[in-house]
Amino acid sequence: MSQKSPFTLHCLSTECDARRGEVRTRQGVFQTPVFMPVGTQGTVKAVTPENLMEMNAQIILGNTYHLFIRPGHRLIESFGGLHRFMNWKGSILTDSGGFQIFSLKELATITEEGAAFRSHLDGSKLFLSPEDAVEVQQSLGSDIMMCLDTCIPFPSTRDETIRATELTTRWARRCRSAHSRREQLLFGIVQGGMYPELRKEHAEALIDIGFDGYAIGGLSVGEKPQIMYDMTRETVASLPADYPRYLMGVGTPEDLVEGVWRGVDMFDCVMPTRNARNGSLFTSKGKISIKNARFRDDHSPVDEECGCYTCRNYSRAYLRHLFQAREILSYHLNTIHNLHFYLTLMANIRKAIEKDNFARFRQDFYSKLEYE
Amino acid sequence: MSQKSPFTLHCLSTECDARRGEVRTRQGVFQTPVFMPVGTQGTVKAVTPENLMEMNAQIILGNTYHLFIRPGHRLIESFGGLHRFMNWKGSILTDSGGFQIFSLKELATITEEGAAFRSHLDGSKLFLSPEDAVEVQQSLGSDIMMCLDTCIPFPSTRDETIRATELTTRWARRCRSAHSRREQLLFGIVQGGMYPELRKEHAEALIDIGFDGYAIGGLSVGEKPQIMYDMTRETVASLPADYPRYLMGVGTPEDLVEGVWRGVDMFDCVMPTRNARNGSLFTSKGKISIKNARFRDDHSPVDEECGCYTCRNYSRAYLRHLFQAREILSYHLNTIHNLHFYLTLMANIRKAIEKDNFARFRQDFYSKLEYE
Ligand SMILES: [Zn+2]
Ligand SMILES: [Zn+2]
Repeated sequence: MSQKSPFTLHCLSTECDARRGEVRTRQGVFQTPVFMPVGTQGTVKAVTPENLMEMNAQIILGNTYHLFIRPGHRLIESFGGLHRFMNWKGSILTDSGGFQIFSLKELATITEEGAAFRSHLDGSKLFLSPEDAVEVQQSLGSDIMMCLDTCIPFPSTRDETIRATELTTRWARRCRSAHSRREQLLFGIVQGGMYPELRKEHAEALIDIGFDGYAIGGLSVGEKPQIMYDMTRETVASLPADYPRYLMGVGTPEDLVEGVWRGVDMFDCVMPTRNARNGSLFTSKGKISIKNARFRDDHSPVDEECGCYTCRNYSRAYLRHLFQAREILSYHLNTIHNLHFYLTLMANIRKAIEKDNFARFRQDFYSKLEYE
Repeated sequence: MSQKSPFTLHCLSTECDARRGEVRTRQGVFQTPVFMPVGTQGTVKAVTPENLMEMNAQIILGNTYHLFIRPGHRLIESFGGLHRFMNWKGSILTDSGGFQIFSLKELATITEEGAAFRSHLDGSKLFLSPEDAVEVQQSLGSDIMMCLDTCIPFPSTRDETIRATELTTRWARRCRSAHSRREQLLFGIVQGGMYPELRKEHAEALIDIGFDGYAIGGLSVGEKPQIMYDMTRETVASLPADYPRYLMGVGTPEDLVEGVWRGVDMFDCVMPTRNARNGSLFTSKGKISIKNARFRDDHSPVDEECGCYTCRNYSRAYLRHLFQAREILSYHLNTIHNLHFYLTLMANIRKAIEKDNFARFRQDFYSKLEYE
């Protein structure tokens, strides 16, 4: 069975399923709902830990698959874990590697025992069992670890989904058994494709094993947003109210608002960082592409409402110039802005829930959108 | 004739031609001898202006050719000049564009009137006269502008060198006439190849026109270091003691020490920034290549003697990992270290001259070198 829940509820919205709380890890406490910037290879791309602290990032995500392959979890462990290796003082959640391995497609073979795959770097043969996934994450020293799960393509038939979900349950049980360093939290991942009743069954099976938190996996894989929102609501309804809920790999600013509305506490997504490097910047009025010629002599900041380092000091024209010139500073400044936008959105959502006016906040959020 | 010199001498070494002073620009005062990080396209690659301030950069260099082509000096002028466009509060020196245009080789044609060339970006036909070079730099709003000069290949015959030097003199006179915004300083560039007597003649011709400072151009073009040092000494000997002296495009840490020894006040070079992006890091013991496998599990900082942000927070092993993974943070952290190394070297040189123990400093500097 699980330990005491790391989640403390502060308050519930009376308007929707949104909730305001906090999660305690061995590294400290983070406030929820929270967005976790993605730091795939031991760095959130193009920014320093100090940049992340300045924008009040509380927890970041590391990718087990990438770190396992390079530089290796043993090396990172010899440095005292990922926090010290990369100089990050907040919390870290690591995924299990499952999603990345499944993304390798023809390079991966799944058996009852685990996942056999080839490194995308040098083609070397590797194997990751559920026990391995926990061991690697324990070596990395992450504050929140994820069970190894199986991912299915979208769409999948009901039978395919059942098979994958049942295997995920058996793997989850093995992960729980392998989980020896209990000060590092372990979350189960609810699968079940787009089948509400399979989601419910899977949630119950995982709750029966008992985890420190529950993630909703297998969404944002190509389905329509409304389907994703519905599946989120259905899954959340099956999860225990006193444990943290994490919607994996989601999403757009709209997705975050809708996920919180349906009771999600934690999110992660590469969108703010990846878009930044492509010159796609989030603003309170919608997304803009900074390379657009209309910004050539635009003296205004990316977003008049934004207080980030980039918006305080640079014009759209300068950012456009840097992007056109492929300057490294372009990726740095764009990433700072986009992450600041996401993190500030979450901070404002937390305030709105505290004041119990999240419905009004959500309405205002949508009414400001102009660009798309 | 020139205005009052912007240079104030603090003290002279009794051991060599080194001198400690300061240069006043309309943006402020910088202490000499000084190293100027290169910011080609309106950014010192991979770092922010705040990073530069933290490492006590006083003045940076901008490239007129690049900014003229993209985003254009008129655009930058409409933003109040390059300082505001790029958010840099220190001084800026801009080169004239001559060196870059000559580097275009077959894309450039030099006539008495000026330089016709094609943009390396889109092949469009462009022309830069000496007057244009001053006008562009005045629009950029740099604190120190350089005369348009003609550059010659190395080696060049005495006759080729004379022709180029005489044309540079005529262009320098035209630059001086076009120089209307006198609060922006204008430096002449002494050419003369590897011919000491041509260097002397050219220096005298430029002094006759009268500039706010004098640069030594056409060195570090492939000649042996000792030749460069000798030509520097010969040229400095012809320059007025009460004006700043700038050795263009130089160089290695050793070159800086030797240049100061021979009476140079100002240096610029892409070496620290470019090497950083190639994983080549300067240390008090010599250069290291961070990608080397021997750093795989090296817990120590790049340089035990360095107090930069990178060395305070990251191991060689982490920096190697970032470099191998081609992470943007690699370029950022490496650049911070290399520039800090150069700027700290210059700060220590200034202190040594003040204490009049620069000979001892130079000896220690060489005795520490192990790696090469
Ligand atoms: Zn911003
Ligand atoms: Zn350093």
